[in-house]
Amino acid sequence: MQINPDRFLNDLHTLRGFGASGVGKGVVRPAFSPPDIAARDWLAGQMQDAGLTPHYDPVGSLFGLSDAEKSLLVGSHSDSQPEGGWLDGALGVICGLELARASAEAGGPPISIANFQDEEGRFGVTTGSTIWSGALSLDAADRLTDRDGITFAEARSAMSHLASDFVDPGRFSGFVEVHIEQGPWLYEAGEAAGVVTDIVGIRDMRITFDGEQNHAGTTPMHRRKDAVQAMVAFITAINERFRNVVTPQTVWTNGHIEVHPNAHSIVPGRCTFSMQWRDGDGDRLRRMETIIRDTAAEIAADSGLAVEFGTMLGLEPVDMAAPLQNALADAAETVCPGRWRRMQSGALHDAANVAKLMPAAMLFVPSINGISHDFAEDTDEADLVTGMQILARAVASL
Amino acid sequence: MQINPDRFLNDLHTLRGFGASGVGKGVVRPAFSPPDIAARDWLAGQMQDAGLTPHYDPVGSLFGLSDAEKSLLVGSHSDSQPEGGWLDGALGVICGLELARASAEAGGPPISIANFQDEEGRFGVTTGSTIWSGALSLDAADRLTDRDGITFAEARSAMSHLASDFVDPGRFSGFVEVHIEQGPWLYEAGEAAGVVTDIVGIRDMRITFDGEQNHAGTTPMHRRKDAVQAMVAFITAINERFRNVVTPQTVWTNGHIEVHPNAHSIVPGRCTFSMQWRDGDGDRLRRMETIIRDTAAEIAADSGLAVEFGTMLGLEPVDMAAPLQNALADAAETVCPGRWRRMQSGALHDAANVAKLMPAAMLFVPSINGISHDFAEDTDEADLVTGMQILARAVASL
Repeated sequence: MQINPDRFLNDLHTLRGFGASGVGKGVVRPAFSPPDIAARDWLAGQMQDAGLTPHYDPVGSLFGLSDAEKSLLVGSHSDSQPEGGWLDGALGVICGLELARASAEAGGPPISIANFQDEEGRFGVTTGSTIWSGALSLDAADRLTDRDGITFAEARSAMSHLASDFVDPGRFSGFVEVHIEQGPWLYEAGEAAGVVTDIVGIRDMRITFDGEQNHAGTTPMHRRKDAVQAMVAFITAINERFRNVVTPQTVWTNGHIEVHPNAHSIVPGRCTFSMQWRDGDGDRLRRMETIIRDTAAEIAADSGLAVEFGTMLGLEPVDMAAPLQNALADAAETVCPGRWRRMQSGALHDAANVAKLMPAAMLFVPSINGISHDFAEDTDEADLVTGMQILARAVASL
Repeated sequence: MQINPDRFLNDLHTLRGFGASGVGKGVVRPAFSPPDIAARDWLAGQMQDAGLTPHYDPVGSLFGLSDAEKSLLVGSHSDSQPEGGWLDGALGVICGLELARASAEAGGPPISIANFQDEEGRFGVTTGSTIWSGALSLDAADRLTDRDGITFAEARSAMSHLASDFVDPGRFSGFVEVHIEQGPWLYEAGEAAGVVTDIVGIRDMRITFDGEQNHAGTTPMHRRKDAVQAMVAFITAINERFRNVVTPQTVWTNGHIEVHPNAHSIVPGRCTFSMQWRDGDGDRLRRMETIIRDTAAEIAADSGLAVEFGTMLGLEPVDMAAPLQNALADAAETVCPGRWRRMQSGALHDAANVAKLMPAAMLFVPSINGISHDFAEDTDEADLVTGMQILARAVASL
């Protein structure tokens, strides 16, 4: 099976044109936005040209279906972060497209393409593939809202004229997702590829400290119930208490903060912030949750504030299917001997949901300086082609 | 000189009707808003009825002018915080009104009334009285913007049809401002009044940490340049380092936080927050500034982030004029013997600016639970009347 590097790279750059923004190769193409819908429309045309049947499911996930009774599903997502790069998700979809064409040309195994909707979580987390996997009902999903209060139901109505039924997972023999690493390991080691062993689990919740809004000049420090000070004490304390629990792979992030009333001269009465943590070990995730809840409750009690925990979103760690994993490993060793590794995925991906329905595997290519979820995200084009070649060789060997 | 408690309290409650909002006696009457302009219009009518000439200056500060060659200026401000109480500023203005009426009835000393604009700092800080004091030029003020980007010039144009010249400070013999304490000291001690000795100085600036926006799942903790973590480390460090410098009266506040891009799954690349500190000793304010700048620079250097300091707004501590101060103290001892104290003002007030133009003094009444800059702000009506009586007796004695 011969892939066509120019055709593959040209399609990647064409897709980048939908929502091209910011510096360099930046993209702003959030789920259901006009550029997102336009990009999916263009991709549907490419699928058609590749001899596949374009099919939108009720939530805007686009499939390119082979008419074979069983086919291998290959893909990712084409929606982006509010400020994203050109490869996050897009790479996996274009890899699926090029693989379908190359396989058809070479009389290889039948390939179908997946392009899931809202992987980046404008609503929920990996929304489209979570619903397809059955982990989230359409009714529950329809009630989810984005940061502007728009519901998932309203958002997906923008694509209702394209939508037909959910696709039967039974028609697929497995799922392979090629993705940028989004971390520094491959790039710093000068390696070309990573075969994913498992996808880490994630926990995400909002924590709110409720204190007492007051005058910033006349309220003595010892009488304050300052919600920002409570958040600062909390973050400082968990950084310390996690030490005995975490590994170098464990991460935790407070990426979102909302202060009320958010004025220079007012002791902040309320502070809501995000607490997200990820690890490959479900027990460790639970131990961290205990530290988080106990520490927040302790600090609230000590300083006379109230604390409230929002709903906790969570996904358990997921192992990748051994046969597909080994096929990718053998292909990597042939295409770039000694320049690849088996590794964990610290990022959540659609493959984590699809793994509930069929054998699933992932292949990573390096991210320059490990940067992603930013306009500066990029990968050497030679590494993109290498990833594509590993995928083709692995699939041919199945 | 006999004040009329019912007339005085009725006027306070009438003024509360302009912008009445939120719970209890809450008020939303920010500078130049329709309720603010309507309240000033009503007050102008009351000044007229009290035999004074209403006069708006170019920035919307309203004066009720006695036609005497020299008069004592009494007042405060009627604009409120975005979420304010019914007494902050309003009390001082109505005290001036009742005093003018009582003095006229008793043939007492001539009284004029001041009702400054934007004391609460929708633009800058104590904007109206700062401009009147000469500390801020009208040109510079016109370029100030509020949080929605509206300029002071645009905002004051809503009152331009009312505006005439700035008032000549030479026609006033001094200034007295009655205000709620906005702190807990008088209320907790069960005292009725506080004679202000001096108004603390204030420093206010924005600090920005610039790091590296990245993926919250794939960026290892040791490789992050997390702007929120830098802010947390900074606030924790100054809380510690201030210990050897501050007194129980010193206060500092981080009331405003802006995170970019402010998303759960993204390591925050930029964080801007407010740093405000207040103290009665100018040297201490400078020592704290050094700690703030050194600590922020240190943390930025240690964690590979950039730090930027915004313009520092500052006002030096101001002593109140001894003769007026003593007249208020003697009156307090007569009206509520043993139930008053001399005290510092931790809040900034128009009196701090007016003190540059003439002898100035302030009288505090208790704030229930020390709460202010909040809908819950309140004071026992008996204490309001006591404050009014102290003012009248002190002025009669001049």
